[in-house]
Amino acid sequence: MLKGSRPGFELDRRLDKDSVQLMWLGLCELRVMDDRRWPWLILVPQRPGAVEIHDLTPLDQAMLTFETNLVSEGLKKASGCLKINTGALGNVVRQLHVHVVARSEGDPNWPGPVWGFGQREPYRREDLHRFAETIRKAL
Amino acid sequence: MLKGSRPGFELDRRLDKDSVQLMWLGLCELRVMDDRRWPWLILVPQRPGAVEIHDLTPLDQAMLTFETNLVSEGLKKASGCLKINTGALGNVVRQLHVHVVARSEGDPNWPGPVWGFGQREPYRREDLHRFAETIRKAL
Repeated sequence: MLKGSRPGFELDRRLDKDSVQLMWLGLCELRVMDDRRWPWLILVPQRPGAVEIHDLTPLDQAMLTFETNLVSEGLKKASGCLKINTGALGNVVRQLHVHVVARSEGDPNWPGPVWGFGQREPYRREDLHRFAETIRKAL
Repeated sequence: MLKGSRPGFELDRRLDKDSVQLMWLGLCELRVMDDRRWPWLILVPQRPGAVEIHDLTPLDQAMLTFETNLVSEGLKKASGCLKINTGALGNVVRQLHVHVVARSEGDPNWPGPVWGFGQREPYRREDLHRFAETIRKAL
């Protein structure tokens, strides 16, 4: 179990590998996707076994909405992007997670989606820390 | 203005062209994407000028969550799909709209996203009516 995670909750290995922890929100762990092609955050509700958003309790659904929109607004301000893309797909990683991605004209695959496009390009360590710090301040 | 739409609200022309009206929910117009490759629904909040979910009022955000999850659960039951994909992108059509798509292993572009993949394949009229009727009953 990850340090700080909720009892009984174990982060999916693929999510653990592709992203790094940024902070804890009320329901979700907020993570940064380690892909410098786009400013990209991921919310992971700390509910063991959750797969679909509609399987969450109504209170958890409301919490997830609140936290997603908080993150979305912060990311848009911090990145100065043109458009936020949010999505919950789960075709590859079944554990419920919500993507919040900052998109701008001319970015890789614009105006197509970020999912399934090309290969992840990890940040240099100092750039990842800088991005994470920017987001922390914006929330 | 579309028959039945809210005062001051005008549906984006691209959405109007690519999808057909299914029913009115409390906040949203529910539409069927006219693409037989996947069972695909679209919710359009009747708020003139809305672009990002986080720009909606907190009450509208809660309504959108409730309606999206109602539709998601109904579509999953009606389609028997493996996974629901939800997303709000808006890179092409800026008017706020939320996609709810039924995905199954082996469907076109599985496990990649539906957005930006290939060309839309319109339903035969009777198949579209049948799908719409199935969804109406499931909600």
